[in-house]
Amino acid sequence: MTPTQLQNVAEAADTIGQLLSQNDLAGASAVLTPLTVPEVVELVDRLGIEDAAIVYRLLTKGRALEVFEALSPGTQGDLVQALRNAEVTTLFAEMDPDDRVWLLDELPASVAPRLLRGLTRQERDLTSGMLGYPQDSIGRRMSPEFVTTHPQLTVAETMARVRGALDSAETVYTLPVTDRGRRVVGVVSLRDLMGATDDALIGDLMNGDPHIAVVSEDAETAARRTTDYGLLALPVVDGEDRLVGILTIDDAARILKQEESEDAARQGGVEPLRRSYLSTPISRLVRSRVVWLLVLAVGATLTVQVLDTFEATLAQMTVLALFVPLLIGTGGNTGNQAATTVTRSLALGEVAPRDVLKVLSREVRTGFCLGLLLGLLGFAIAGLVYEWHVGLVIGLTLVAVCTVAASVGGMMPLAARAIRVDPAVFSNPFITTFVDATGLVIYFLIAKAVLGI
Amino acid sequence: MTPTQLQNVAEAADTIGQLLSQNDLAGASAVLTPLTVPEVVELVDRLGIEDAAIVYRLLTKGRALEVFEALSPGTQGDLVQALRNAEVTTLFAEMDPDDRVWLLDELPASVAPRLLRGLTRQERDLTSGMLGYPQDSIGRRMSPEFVTTHPQLTVAETMARVRGALDSAETVYTLPVTDRGRRVVGVVSLRDLMGATDDALIGDLMNGDPHIAVVSEDAETAARRTTDYGLLALPVVDGEDRLVGILTIDDAARILKQEESEDAARQGGVEPLRRSYLSTPISRLVRSRVVWLLVLAVGATLTVQVLDTFEATLAQMTVLALFVPLLIGTGGNTGNQAATTVTRSLALGEVAPRDVLKVLSREVRTGFCLGLLLGLLGFAIAGLVYEWHVGLVIGLTLVAVCTVAASVGGMMPLAARAIRVDPAVFSNPFITTFVDATGLVIYFLIAKAVLGI
Repeated sequence: MTPTQLQNVAEAADTIGQLLSQNDLAGASAVLTPLTVPEVVELVDRLGIEDAAIVYRLLTKGRALEVFEALSPGTQGDLVQALRNAEVTTLFAEMDPDDRVWLLDELPASVAPRLLRGLTRQERDLTSGMLGYPQDSIGRRMSPEFVTTHPQLTVAETMARVRGALDSAETVYTLPVTDRGRRVVGVVSLRDLMGATDDALIGDLMNGDPHIAVVSEDAETAARRTTDYGLLALPVVDGEDRLVGILTIDDAARILKQEESEDAARQGGVEPLRRSYLSTPISRLVRSRVVWLLVLAVGATLTVQVLDTFEATLAQMTVLALFVPLLIGTGGNTGNQAATTVTRSLALGEVAPRDVLKVLSREVRTGFCLGLLLGLLGFAIAGLVYEWHVGLVIGLTLVAVCTVAASVGGMMPLAARAIRVDPAVFSNPFITTFVDATGLVIYFLIAKAVLGI
Repeated sequence: MTPTQLQNVAEAADTIGQLLSQNDLAGASAVLTPLTVPEVVELVDRLGIEDAAIVYRLLTKGRALEVFEALSPGTQGDLVQALRNAEVTTLFAEMDPDDRVWLLDELPASVAPRLLRGLTRQERDLTSGMLGYPQDSIGRRMSPEFVTTHPQLTVAETMARVRGALDSAETVYTLPVTDRGRRVVGVVSLRDLMGATDDALIGDLMNGDPHIAVVSEDAETAARRTTDYGLLALPVVDGEDRLVGILTIDDAARILKQEESEDAARQGGVEPLRRSYLSTPISRLVRSRVVWLLVLAVGATLTVQVLDTFEATLAQMTVLALFVPLLIGTGGNTGNQAATTVTRSLALGEVAPRDVLKVLSREVRTGFCLGLLLGLLGFAIAGLVYEWHVGLVIGLTLVAVCTVAASVGGMMPLAARAIRVDPAVFSNPFITTFVDATGLVIYFLIAKAVLGI
């Protein structure tokens, strides 16, 4: 969509919001009719869920399914809960098995059995099989609808298989090659098949050392591998190397989008939103933030206690109070920087918990360099403006705080990953709060030592 | 790669690092030989650039090209600068035009003419054409090597075209359909072609309302559209709707990976790294952080000045100093939360600068709710522990600070986008620093009013 179209969608959303508040369904329908499917999707992402459900009902049946499939799983979940049972059952039956599992993951557990009962036996088995794999594993995100070929088949025989599966298979552009025991022995691309003679054997054409995922593997890791190597599809195997599914690159991109959104949110101390920002009610925005804000505020009472302990020192030298925000702010920033870099590297698979000592050594050195630089500046400026004793306290504190903050900031994401928590959960605000209290203790200890109070 | 393989790569990297420090090239080569291409890529991402260049030279020629193509553009850039001219010229000639432009974007401008001279006339024209499009536009990231078909051609005729372009085209799975004026009138998938009879006309099979990008469009926006709609390829047209290139989904995923890395880095107040964390020298880590840290520290001297202004008040009531970190910390967190949510929504195209009033209204309300909640708690606790006047000051300050912080945090990313700066640049640390100073002014004004000092 072009910027002009986006502008139109924004205006259409406002108009439809007004029309619906006046119960003018015919008017709303007239606004909807000229919009393309992607435009309707954008529009739904700008409406509250009640309005979105009405818009959905105003669509013709074919368009409704197309729109539904293009919505994010979170929006699908909210929409399903706003629609009637009969509507949902029809919709659910028409979805692909992987999209169905994704949707079920967004719904209360009690809804699943009812929806599954509405499926044909075969569809139900495919879907239930996927639901058996662990949360966040690639088993729940792969597609169980694939076409395979065998090393001893010819290109012509394989092409016939492909033609027979055009309507059902998730992809026909990358085919896993399996042996008699359903074990993956290679992959072959449709492009390779088209470039070969009809009687060429798959065994001679295939890539015999393909990328593969194990069904219990973390979905994000498998998705990242798929996009990193530009694989159109990644075969997924069970514990005995038998093919059980395939992850296509578009599904990989969808997984990564959701993971990136979660990481970005947690890095800022927010719970990820289920739906788009504009369509999320204020009450949900508040809920997505309040828990972390409270946790952090409770953590911050530590700083009150630290300052309370040193109140006598403070009363004696009020000038020390002036630098508190600057010092803890700098500590927090240094910690954030380290945490941000390491969290991203973890997400990209560049570092792992086993690299803990390497990371620690790098962050100690980086933090020390940064602290030295800022500390010299702080010493000079505070020394000139106030007095050189104060300058010395500020300078030394900056060196110590930056070193500690970078080390803690770099270690936290690794510690989180080691105990199997999302590294982004020990988010920047969390580190800031921790570093704040530590920084204050360091500050006052140095002040007492240097100033002899 | 499985976790075991990653473990092996980490160990291999350590071993190779040691062997190279002893100049034992034969030993290093022996460690490299059994590794697969993806393993070598991971290994290179763990080595400093000098070691990486030696490893690269130890690879056989075919493997070297495969490894190079799988490296990130930043690593490619560093590697090219560490290799000899002749090696680079050969490498450059074998790359695809889009990968070549990506690499040139990572190199000093002076290098480009020399490298371009080493290409054949046709390859040079393709590459130079792309270099003519603006920085960050999809024109620099698309592939100019595509196969097209026409509405009046049959399936058999189109298949013949596809077979003729198997080796050169970026993709053969999605074909743009163009008219006589090279204007895009639809797209058709190879899957559709395979399901049709040989004499069917493309005009009857094609999707006549396809997603399209304009060549000057922002690369991230076009890439996001490609993955959001699971398009295997997106046609790119010039100002007169004529086809000039195609963006494949794997290239779209690569663009998004880079953009996400940049956003994550800037959200934490760090300049994005060119290479992986472990392969980046400490001096570069320091450089990636020091500028922002200095800017923020200079910004934070505002807080020293604010506190200096109110020093008399502070000296009179030292208890006020105890809450400074808690209050400004909470303000900073609230601002971060809002900025994080809005920055991500902007990146996903869910909101745009024109939605400024909607966002402001949502953030004022959200911030006020959060402030009210925390304020009541703060009032009760500070009132009980210290005295109720102090509690009132803390409570009122929290309400005001949270409201202001959420509003500022929500507005900043939109303001940045409006003036065409990366919204993530006005990053969380930036907002924290701004909110710190504002929060202190609010705090002391409320304190003076309530306490009558």
